[in-house]
Amino acid sequence: MTVFNQIAIIGIGLIGSSIARAAKETGVCERILLTDASAEVCQRAGSLGLGDVVESVKDCVETADLVLMCTPVGVMSDLARDMAPHLKPGTIVSDVGSVKSAVYDTVHAYLPETVHFIPGHPIAGTEKSGPEAGFSSLFQDRWCILTPPEAEEGGDALAQLTAFWEGLGSKVEIMPIDRHDRVLAITSHLPHLIAFNIVGTAHDLESVTEGEVVKFSAGGFRDFTRIAASDPIMWRDVFLNNKEAVLEMLGRFNEDLTALQRAIRWGEGEQLRAFFERTRGIRKSIVDAGQDTDADDFGRGGPKD
Amino acid sequence: MTVFNQIAIIGIGLIGSSIARAAKETGVCERILLTDASAEVCQRAGSLGLGDVVESVKDCVETADLVLMCTPVGVMSDLARDMAPHLKPGTIVSDVGSVKSAVYDTVHAYLPETVHFIPGHPIAGTEKSGPEAGFSSLFQDRWCILTPPEAEEGGDALAQLTAFWEGLGSKVEIMPIDRHDRVLAITSHLPHLIAFNIVGTAHDLESVTEGEVVKFSAGGFRDFTRIAASDPIMWRDVFLNNKEAVLEMLGRFNEDLTALQRAIRWGEGEQLRAFFERTRGIRKSIVDAGQDTDADDFGRGGPKD
Repeated sequence: MTVFNQIAIIGIGLIGSSIARAAKETGVCERILLTDASAEVCQRAGSLGLGDVVESVKDCVETADLVLMCTPVGVMSDLARDMAPHLKPGTIVSDVGSVKSAVYDTVHAYLPETVHFIPGHPIAGTEKSGPEAGFSSLFQDRWCILTPPEAEEGGDALAQLTAFWEGLGSKVEIMPIDRHDRVLAITSHLPHLIAFNIVGTAHDLESVTEGEVVKFSAGGFRDFTRIAASDPIMWRDVFLNNKEAVLEMLGRFNEDLTALQRAIRWGEGEQLRAFFERTRGIRKSIVDAGQDTDADDFGRGGPKD
Repeated sequence: MTVFNQIAIIGIGLIGSSIARAAKETGVCERILLTDASAEVCQRAGSLGLGDVVESVKDCVETADLVLMCTPVGVMSDLARDMAPHLKPGTIVSDVGSVKSAVYDTVHAYLPETVHFIPGHPIAGTEKSGPEAGFSSLFQDRWCILTPPEAEEGGDALAQLTAFWEGLGSKVEIMPIDRHDRVLAITSHLPHLIAFNIVGTAHDLESVTEGEVVKFSAGGFRDFTRIAASDPIMWRDVFLNNKEAVLEMLGRFNEDLTALQRAIRWGEGEQLRAFFERTRGIRKSIVDAGQDTDADDFGRGGPKD
């Protein structure tokens, strides 16, 4: 089902290239234009046959019905300033950034009133980066959060953008911007920060070699390394742009961890057991909700008999 | 290849039942005797056809060539006291506990000098518990660490126990007890503690509902919930019995996290980026070492085109 005639994808990384692949495969648009700040990435995207790769933001956006900013959050403000003069009236502008509030404020200020700006965030990804890392099923059965400003609520632009993401296989959730940033701070940003941190701690341990850490990583550590292999620039921008919510969640996390630390030091077994018992319920809910499978040997292999 | 005539498995959970399944399938022993403190678990193990289920520790161990303690670490001392009078001379006694130093000291004190006590730890598992959760391929290509006391180094008992684990599909690593506890503190115990903690923090957030946490868990959180669904009793005992190493690793983790927190608060982007860049290398080493696959969409699905 065709939703848009022409879409423009700016930033051809894991997400941008996956959107291109999925859009092509599902036919949600007639034509896909892509561009990237890196000429080398543009060339690789061209060889991958992701769509019509153009060299300038102007060429990419000026005839597009939907413009998707798929760059790291930190450059979206400059990108909005550069593309603003070239957007045709009625164009829908959206993004895929993991942070919404800080981005909305700066991007919105640059865009002309004749376009519809509706921020978005597909909750999907892998630890890989670059145009080669994308795949067309990335958004299948995954949530995509859209955070329309009041003026766009219930409008045609929102309906079209919703249809586009549903066409790619996603389920769409509408949410206020501030709520998005708080929900993602706990479900995504804090987990990534913790994972980056523990991998760093392991790296610095002079008393345990990296070889041992690698060899015996199946005991739990390797799951953190997968998350901690995510794109450094993207995550730097996430933490800098969702500072308030991340620091709040981190404060709560630290309080809880201090309580566990104290329980270990003083040998308070019953308190530890009760705490660990409680956390099992959430796992069950996630499996029941179809947001993870139940057959993983810590993410690898799994029961075979 | 038969290594032992008769083995005794005490504690029929995920690990004990997986050993029984793998031993039966590979023929590393002629006969498998099993027992569990819970009569109900014994009954379920009987229905699963895991081996000859007996009701008492005495019946289980008195004719065994290898006795494997597969209980939580916290009860191993009592178990050693109970079974000690019934062990025949020459029997090899081992265990599968995640902590070695505290266990060795208490268990060793109870065992007669006529048996060979060689602690062990297969680095394999899932977040599931109980005899139904086991499967025969759990140890395939996974490391099993053996920590023989000096008197057993280079001896026949160690060679036999090594052959047994290799027969189940494992690779065997010999390591001093103290080193095991430090290596595992960072590769397994601390990751579990952090995972339990963040799931608890999310659970307590009144400003974000559990429904939202579940719905949008694909952003990273769900990987932590898998780890945090592990057996509460087992993990309570691990933290209580490897207190010193866990608290040391936790101290380092906290220092590092405080530095990241400060960098976020003060907007030190370059410091964040450099930190995140560094952690990618370890991931690559783990994938290269065959200790994880490289095709996971955060543990689920993965590239399909």
